[in-house]
Amino acid sequence: MPVAVDAMGGDRGSGIIVEGAIIAARERGVESILVGKEDHLRAELRRLGGEGLPISVYPASQVVEMGESPADAMRRKKDSSIQVAFNLVKEGKASSVVSAGNSGATLATAMFTLGRIKGVRPAICTLMPTLKDPLVLIDVGANVDCKPLHLLQFGIMASVYYRECLKNPNPRVGLMSIGEEHSKGNQQVKKAYDLLSGSDLNFVGNVEGRDLFRGDVHVIVCDGFVGNICLKLSEGLGEAVLSMLRTEIKGSIMATIGYTLAKTAFKRFQKRVDYAEYGGAPLLGINGVALICHGMSPAKALKNAIISSKDLVEIKLAKKLADSLSKRQDLLRLV
Amino acid sequence: MPVAVDAMGGDRGSGIIVEGAIIAARERGVESILVGKEDHLRAELRRLGGEGLPISVYPASQVVEMGESPADAMRRKKDSSIQVAFNLVKEGKASSVVSAGNSGATLATAMFTLGRIKGVRPAICTLMPTLKDPLVLIDVGANVDCKPLHLLQFGIMASVYYRECLKNPNPRVGLMSIGEEHSKGNQQVKKAYDLLSGSDLNFVGNVEGRDLFRGDVHVIVCDGFVGNICLKLSEGLGEAVLSMLRTEIKGSIMATIGYTLAKTAFKRFQKRVDYAEYGGAPLLGINGVALICHGMSPAKALKNAIISSKDLVEIKLAKKLADSLSKRQDLLRLV
Repeated sequence: MPVAVDAMGGDRGSGIIVEGAIIAARERGVESILVGKEDHLRAELRRLGGEGLPISVYPASQVVEMGESPADAMRRKKDSSIQVAFNLVKEGKASSVVSAGNSGATLATAMFTLGRIKGVRPAICTLMPTLKDPLVLIDVGANVDCKPLHLLQFGIMASVYYRECLKNPNPRVGLMSIGEEHSKGNQQVKKAYDLLSGSDLNFVGNVEGRDLFRGDVHVIVCDGFVGNICLKLSEGLGEAVLSMLRTEIKGSIMATIGYTLAKTAFKRFQKRVDYAEYGGAPLLGINGVALICHGMSPAKALKNAIISSKDLVEIKLAKKLADSLSKRQDLLRLV
Repeated sequence: MPVAVDAMGGDRGSGIIVEGAIIAARERGVESILVGKEDHLRAELRRLGGEGLPISVYPASQVVEMGESPADAMRRKKDSSIQVAFNLVKEGKASSVVSAGNSGATLATAMFTLGRIKGVRPAICTLMPTLKDPLVLIDVGANVDCKPLHLLQFGIMASVYYRECLKNPNPRVGLMSIGEEHSKGNQQVKKAYDLLSGSDLNFVGNVEGRDLFRGDVHVIVCDGFVGNICLKLSEGLGEAVLSMLRTEIKGSIMATIGYTLAKTAFKRFQKRVDYAEYGGAPLLGINGVALICHGMSPAKALKNAIISSKDLVEIKLAKKLADSLSKRQDLLRLV
């Protein structure tokens, strides 16, 4: 079944999104449905040489703007590309959704249209590069005010995701805090520590900001406010470090020659820290599969998200998450 | 009046701290009192060639360990180097305190011994490098659970600090959140937004994680939980980026030659992102001056902290903070 792609979302126009779908079809034969303004998308598909590939276009007359309130968008734009993409999944015409548009609206529409796993707060998780194994950070923005119990749910969901997608049978789970000791952290985190310790997760205790990139922990749990700040801080600092380095290099002829010689190493390095390599961020806890991409995503990130989306459907991730959570009925009752 | 230096704190032994005091005395003639185990410190001072400089030693028989609970330490170790250092300030024998030891204990001892500005929650602020002006992040760990009002107090204190120490008459103040719009953020931050908007600060609204390093905002306000995570994440990511870059460079002969040619640029770059350049983190809101250094601080960071400490006393920072806060009596009453 094809992946429904919100072809009107993102900050860089539909061309980038269509291009992502084309590469996914060429490289991995992934079928997709581009949802949005029909004539425009057909023209883009033609312009980018995507005819003849397993890519169709499905009409949606409205577009949710990036700054728009999710509640307003859902109420007023019943024919938005985001809403129509989720409708296609609900109607059994598509397997999953990929969107680089308004992430709040994507989240709200996913929950409303597909529903969530009973008693669970859906969360957005993201893969981050580290010095060793990739890290899954959860939640990166779906829930700004969380109860300790939600942090436990996030830990359970991200562990299943890590186990299934990154082939590690027993991922190490850490709780984001400001010191290793149990006594460190705010009220929310101290209570979450007890819940995580008492669970059957491979919980390794609190981790600090500096531990993120060491790669010793596979899953880090935090609320969506903290997680979103961490995610954007990492992107910003990565850019800033490279920008400062370029400024210093430009100041000297020897350094410029040196940089030229070392360029391949720099390119490999940039690839390692490039978020686009990791594609979209899956929304865990809904009855279905949806991936949220950065608004500035390049075609490569969209391609990777479309491929991941298909993979997550094939491994039946949503069902595995529901099974894992239902083993802990106490969690669901407490919410 | 000399600066009281907790010479037993930190993860790297007393030698580093004594060395910091020696360089501060040599470079800027700053007087200091090394507080701690007398014989040991005198031997270190001799070993490092610090005799004849305006550095004295004051005995304290106990040491607060890095992982020790601040409350326990204060109750059981009345003769710790941290406590004795603050006693010297209280008795008028020293102007201020610098410690690289247990930061929770330093904070608690400062509040208990010197007192805090009435109605105010003291906070730790830190200077961070950016692509433009330095940034003051407040709070980075003193208050893990804050009310919106405390975030306003932090904004007022950090603005005074920025104005006085970084010579900017009207620093731009941002509130750390997860989107620029007023509607973004958790409950605490949304309420703090209203308080900051209604204040006479140069409040520019919400800022996101990625804005930290751009340098367009001078002060960023957040609670100590979020701030501490941001600070440690930045340190960790800076190290990780350099480490990944080194790994890539080592893989190729051309890149190694290139790196050698570009080395001076790299060194300038490392200096720019080196936290040691900025010395200690001032504790704002107490009746006095105290600077908290990273446990892993090199001698240079301690030297810079000792010099800053003297400067903050000379410009009467504590009095200026109290004056600024007392103009807003409503803030103090509400707490």
